[in-house]
Amino acid sequence: MKRVMLTVAYDGTNYHGWQLQSNVPTIESVLNEKLSGLLKEEIKVIGASRTDTGVHALGNIAVFDTTARMPADKISYALNQRLPADIRIQSSCEVAQDFHPRHQTSKKTYEYKILNSAFPIPVYRLYTHFTYVPLDVAKMQKAAAHLVGEHDFKSFCSVNTTVETTVRTIYELTVEKSQDIITIRVTGSGFLYNMVRIIAGTLIEAGRGSLHPDAMPDILNACDRAKAGPTAPACGLTLVKYEFFV
Amino acid sequence: MKRVMLTVAYDGTNYHGWQLQSNVPTIESVLNEKLSGLLKEEIKVIGASRTDTGVHALGNIAVFDTTARMPADKISYALNQRLPADIRIQSSCEVAQDFHPRHQTSKKTYEYKILNSAFPIPVYRLYTHFTYVPLDVAKMQKAAAHLVGEHDFKSFCSVNTTVETTVRTIYELTVEKSQDIITIRVTGSGFLYNMVRIIAGTLIEAGRGSLHPDAMPDILNACDRAKAGPTAPACGLTLVKYEFFV
Repeated sequence: MKRVMLTVAYDGTNYHGWQLQSNVPTIESVLNEKLSGLLKEEIKVIGASRTDTGVHALGNIAVFDTTARMPADKISYALNQRLPADIRIQSSCEVAQDFHPRHQTSKKTYEYKILNSAFPIPVYRLYTHFTYVPLDVAKMQKAAAHLVGEHDFKSFCSVNTTVETTVRTIYELTVEKSQDIITIRVTGSGFLYNMVRIIAGTLIEAGRGSLHPDAMPDILNACDRAKAGPTAPACGLTLVKYEFFV
Repeated sequence: MKRVMLTVAYDGTNYHGWQLQSNVPTIESVLNEKLSGLLKEEIKVIGASRTDTGVHALGNIAVFDTTARMPADKISYALNQRLPADIRIQSSCEVAQDFHPRHQTSKKTYEYKILNSAFPIPVYRLYTHFTYVPLDVAKMQKAAAHLVGEHDFKSFCSVNTTVETTVRTIYELTVEKSQDIITIRVTGSGFLYNMVRIIAGTLIEAGRGSLHPDAMPDILNACDRAKAGPTAPACGLTLVKYEFFV
């Protein structure tokens, strides 16, 4: 028996998120089905991030146990032959038997992309959130700076969640514009439910001028979801990478 | 009666190219149908570039004549309400009655994008051509430099074409890499059938080392399609913009 770790990239457009559900396609259900077919035994993956419907990934992580003889590093190639074009394994390797992607200390990086132009541009529609209201990137950057560090992010967490603590650490949070695309890139110790999308929605409010950048500390201190901006749409969000600390 | 010019952006994935065909969706057929519905008279657009199946555009050009009273600059907004999400008008304006987008002197810019990584990345699959063979960008740049200027591009033209002359001028041809994406950007007086895709296919051959960059002058001089590289796949190609000279 060995434990194998996969780095999984996907276009979330046609999936009801990561987590297994009956009767709808999810990333987890496709991986379980295709791995079971490949390795000729029932495989159940454990995902690092259970991304929502429509969210994309360049590097989500999944682990599974198998008794199959196929070398761990060959599984990526063989599995990609069976997967649909919107899911692709980027690497596979053997890890320790007790490696669990959600219990391991890690840094996660997400990107949220906004198309800020007069009209939607079709080739960007699946991977960006469109708004024609001009956004002031300097204001977004100023607002973002207040969120870096260890904070209670309860105001940036969807209400119906049950977690032990809502304190998280953001190591880096940048806002950059290239042509008409604004990219919010955030690296943290972990993220609460919908946290990155609520941060994006709040920074958009700051960028359009309906929220003062220096209101951010008050929003954090309120510990009240109603004080932050709206949850930005899923299609703009991409899980970029996981880094595990040994 | 007035003549209106549209700047049209589209995701070509789900279309059989620009040109009207029976029983399959094309950009031209959708524009004719939606404009006719909007303006309550039969509209037939004239396209600047009849892009192939699967080719994308940020700024293709179409003109049409109408007796409708709607101001030309308002048509973009009204038409976008009726168009599917993979076609979006970027601007509309009135032009001279004799303005014809294929007879006017113009500069056209195309981009061809290549994903050069170990494995395909799903979020790029619709808008890039994937190859895992490492491409040497410096060699591609060296090969590209030979194509700049006025040349007979017969070797870079699909065989079953009937044009008066195969001489064209390339003003600029750059190859740049950012992360795993190589972008070939070319601006020219005009392009022969499949010319940009054949240039891309030939530069890929140079990048992978199966063609010497300095072989380009001989390929040009041969005036023989068989001497150039293969026609690179359509999905990597985007028509970026038209610039008209008055």
